[in-house]
Amino acid sequence: MTSQPQDSTISADALFAHLTRVLESRKPARGGDPASSYVAKLLADGKAPDAFLKKIGEEAAEVIMAAKDLQDGRKEREALVYEVADLWFHTLVALTHFNLGADDVVRELARREGVSGLAEKAARPLD
Amino acid sequence: MTSQPQDSTISADALFAHLTRVLESRKPARGGDPASSYVAKLLADGKAPDAFLKKIGEEAAEVIMAAKDLQDGRKEREALVYEVADLWFHTLVALTHFNLGADDVVRELARREGVSGLAEKAARPLD
Amino acid sequence: MTSQPQDSTISADALFAHLTRVLESRKPARGGDPASSYVAKLLADGKAPDAFLKKIGEEAAEVIMAAKDLQDGRKEREALVYEVADLWFHTLVALTHFNLGADDVVRELARREGVSGLAEKAARPLD
Amino acid sequence: MTSQPQDSTISADALFAHLTRVLESRKPARGGDPASSYVAKLLADGKAPDAFLKKIGEEAAEVIMAAKDLQDGRKEREALVYEVADLWFHTLVALTHFNLGADDVVRELARREGVSGLAEKAARPLD
Repeated sequence: MTSQPQDSTISADALFAHLTRVLESRKPARGGDPASSYVAKLLADGKAPDAFLKKIGEEAAEVIMAAKDLQDGRKEREALVYEVADLWFHTLVALTHFNLGADDVVRELARREGVSGLAEKAARPLD
Repeated sequence: MTSQPQDSTISADALFAHLTRVLESRKPARGGDPASSYVAKLLADGKAPDAFLKKIGEEAAEVIMAAKDLQDGRKEREALVYEVADLWFHTLVALTHFNLGADDVVRELARREGVSGLAEKAARPLD
Repeated sequence: MTSQPQDSTISADALFAHLTRVLESRKPARGGDPASSYVAKLLADGKAPDAFLKKIGEEAAEVIMAAKDLQDGRKEREALVYEVADLWFHTLVALTHFNLGADDVVRELARREGVSGLAEKAARPLD
Repeated sequence: MTSQPQDSTISADALFAHLTRVLESRKPARGGDPASSYVAKLLADGKAPDAFLKKIGEEAAEVIMAAKDLQDGRKEREALVYEVADLWFHTLVALTHFNLGADDVVRELARREGVSGLAEKAARPLD
């Protein structure tokens, strides 16, 4: 596990497009079923937004704990990745509830970095 | 702002590759200068990991507050996107410190979704 | 409910002394039984400290949410009191695990306020 | 530092009464001056409640980090006490903003413990 992709088959764009479709389908208005879907339960009327906001607080705590465990060599780096994935996932649930998505976060981060022309660069090798 | 990309020029893959390069360059071992760079200050020896972990707690609180404000129509959706971007950014700083990166999170989320073949799918229209 | 005591029968000193005794009795070394006690489960070997630290993250999120709900008149003030009580309680569990207690927090807050002579003052009417 | 009071001059009741008076005096309506008082700045119109809620998120993170550091012997127990005191203090600021106080939390915790008659017990030696 390095900060360079080891597995070239994973595209963040494709992942986010996939997650957007799945999360959208779990909305109450789309027939998301709280009985069979964890995300539908978080998004259910009367549960949202508190259900997923509480999870964001809990997952942030777990990221902090995993980082501390990693600092001490008590856990593997995979544990930190796992907790960050949990935290990102629950923020995506929150965004979905408000008709937002990962692409909005990507656009905001790109705006800050001044990289609005990233796609053009992406079409060429990324130096 | 919808959950579908409005601006086709932003690629999450290109953004993450860019952020990985920038964050890596802010490491103390790479000459990151705490005097001129916010990220270098978070990653500085004697500051990391506590400096950025504290920020993760604070940014998670701000995501929760922004979602509550949005629920009440007190703030715009942009405010929630902004806070989630802040939270993701600081988790990327944490990952960088431990020689991890966004691609590790993407891979973990893809693994959970059972979409390890996403790149092949991405080559075709994403339905 | 005001910030002045309405019910003169509740003493913070007596409450904390009581909680200290109860929480101490839930430690694994004191025979705390995870099967019958929520606190014993949080303090159990192999669960502590992560079990109660995760709760502290979650309860902090709930305090924030309750305050936001109160700001909007969506919930009663009792809901905020309830969440702060939950948060304090779980910090007391954490302190217990490390052989600390409420009295240590009280002493630290008194030190900051420069009120180490509070007991003498308390013996007289508190102006 | 043990979970039994070492310094009999500190009364939680007297401390909380003191803190209630101080925090109340920092409210904007009482003339609290943001220029000279940290608490008045947190409670200032246009800052509250977000200013202190953000701090609650940050302080919860610091409690978690201090507990992890203590688990590893990297820090002293005083560091955890310090962070819990910070967290309690900022929850007291939040309660003050909503015309609540420590006594409300004490009453709620006492209610849960079924110790409403604590004062009578307190009048006698606490076993």
